[in-house]
Amino acid sequence: MTDEHWLNEAQQSVWRDWLNAQARLLAALNRQLQTDHDLSLPDFEVLVHLSEALDEKLRLSALAEALRWEQSRLSHHLTRMAKRNLVRREPCPEDARGSFACLTPTGRARLEAAAPGHAATVRALLFDALSDTDLEALGHATRTLLTALNRAEAAL
Amino acid sequence: MTDEHWLNEAQQSVWRDWLNAQARLLAALNRQLQTDHDLSLPDFEVLVHLSEALDEKLRLSALAEALRWEQSRLSHHLTRMAKRNLVRREPCPEDARGSFACLTPTGRARLEAAAPGHAATVRALLFDALSDTDLEALGHATRTLLTALNRAEAAL
Repeated sequence: MTDEHWLNEAQQSVWRDWLNAQARLLAALNRQLQTDHDLSLPDFEVLVHLSEALDEKLRLSALAEALRWEQSRLSHHLTRMAKRNLVRREPCPEDARGSFACLTPTGRARLEAAAPGHAATVRALLFDALSDTDLEALGHATRTLLTALNRAEAAL
Repeated sequence: MTDEHWLNEAQQSVWRDWLNAQARLLAALNRQLQTDHDLSLPDFEVLVHLSEALDEKLRLSALAEALRWEQSRLSHHLTRMAKRNLVRREPCPEDARGSFACLTPTGRARLEAAAPGHAATVRALLFDALSDTDLEALGHATRTLLTALNRAEAAL
């Protein structure tokens, strides 16, 4: 791989650090949730999205879009979560193909129990280490990336 | 969830953007590799790590550590990649339990073919959109996060 085809040194260094940091951050968040609350990070993300939805339920297509998951992954994951009584599925009256994922009272209680420890871990690993200037810079870089992603996705 | 248990507004906003951006960036990179080169992003990452190793081979434990994957995930993944002749396993003469993952000539050729397009996608989605100031800020924030992760992992 010659240099012209790859990233320059500064880009390469930031890119490797970014990949490394995000993989380890997600692994650490997953580990804390598993150990302390018997939830995976994906379980937690599903519960958060449902808890914030109107009537605590979302159409599967909307939930897949919000999570950026393939529908098949979501469907398998919800089956496993439903067995643990964290969510339930509800048919959609207007559309036989549509169905909803709904938060159960157990799911809500488990989310509420897990959220403070999760937030504390996010703070300890990410925000406590960043100055206000760092936070602002990270926010700006991240929004710039989102704009580029929006443009790229619109061009598909 | 009351405010004292969660993140402040600025942190919350950066955190959601970060999660959203990294999920979409990885999905976009995966899509480009799949469409243009019939490789997944995890396939590509395995090939990159092996291509940079001495003699283009790594002990499974070292590769798992470098990728931040569970050993079982790596083992299943390498089995699928070996069927496609991208890698092969080699027993370790000194340690019956140890074994190596080795890059094959096919794997190296597929990596070399895919790398320029992958790098161009990384540049288009991330680096072209960031000014030098943004890049420096992102680098600093990411290194700060890595330091916090090192400390947290050492404390486990």
